Amino acid sequence: MKTLVPLILVAACGFSMSAGAQFAKIDDAIKYRQSAMFIQSQHVARLGAMAGGRVPYDATAAVANAEVVAEISKLPWAGFGPGTEGGKAKPEIWQEQAKFKELNERLMSDTQKLLVAAKAGNLDALKAAMDPLGETCKTCHDTFRKK
Amino acid sequence: MKTLVPLILVAACGFSMSAGAQFAKIDDAIKYRQSAMFIQSQHVARLGAMAGGRVPYDATAAVANAEVVAEISKLPWAGFGPGTEGGKAKPEIWQEQAKFKELNERLMSDTQKLLVAAKAGNLDALKAAMDPLGETCKTCHDTFRKK
Repeated sequence: MKTLVPLILVAACGFSMSAGAQFAKIDDAIKYRQSAMFIQSQHVARLGAMAGGRVPYDATAAVANAEVVAEISKLPWAGFGPGTEGGKAKPEIWQEQAKFKELNERLMSDTQKLLVAAKAGNLDALKAAMDPLGETCKTCHDTFRKK
Repeated sequence: MKTLVPLILVAACGFSMSAGAQFAKIDDAIKYRQSAMFIQSQHVARLGAMAGGRVPYDATAAVANAEVVAEISKLPWAGFGPGTEGGKAKPEIWQEQAKFKELNERLMSDTQKLLVAAKAGNLDALKAAMDPLGETCKTCHDTFRKK
């Protein structure tokens, strides 16, 4: 019972009390998560271009990009609080919270491993870390993002 | 051809080689900087609400917000490369680069001090660090952002 009460309160007030979760308007929450994922996509694309051989491998740039990816990937989730349906988000996000949360956590883990790989300073390590990240992005988008 | 020329020029004169500076399209650069500044504004607003007494002071949340502000504040500048005029950005940004750069650097310094202040764990330190940050934001917006 003791643990239930705060959870009910959080649910009742709408948003959790974490740093990222206090939005004045639902549109702000949508814009926030979209902004974070856009920045994320830009830096992931640059790492993807290196991993795919479309741009030359640059160890310093790889670390800089991976650092942004690791940091920015922490942000979008706060924008998916209760009652923030909209944008490209499918209603399944709020109906299948456990699955959504699992994919969030997989992304956190993938991006931390990507940062470690980038710091290793070789292209093979980067390539190996990009594959599972790409798979996690794709799985989440296929399941939870509108076409 | 018309659209290609600026892109070639941009590529030639060079965005810097930093992590944030490689955009496929000018619109991506604009969206990138706007995204970063939107995220920034959300977290600064939460700290402002605490500093202004509109929400209760929460030392943990203050640090979490200040950490995001310090990190995200590093990003927008890469989106203001040569040839990326547009959005709410005044042309003065590209005409007065030294002044713009000085304000960027002031923001970096202010946000690092804000993080130190948040970690100090008292409201007075937070308030004292928010004032110069607010002043820097305002100066830059008044000078370089369209109404």
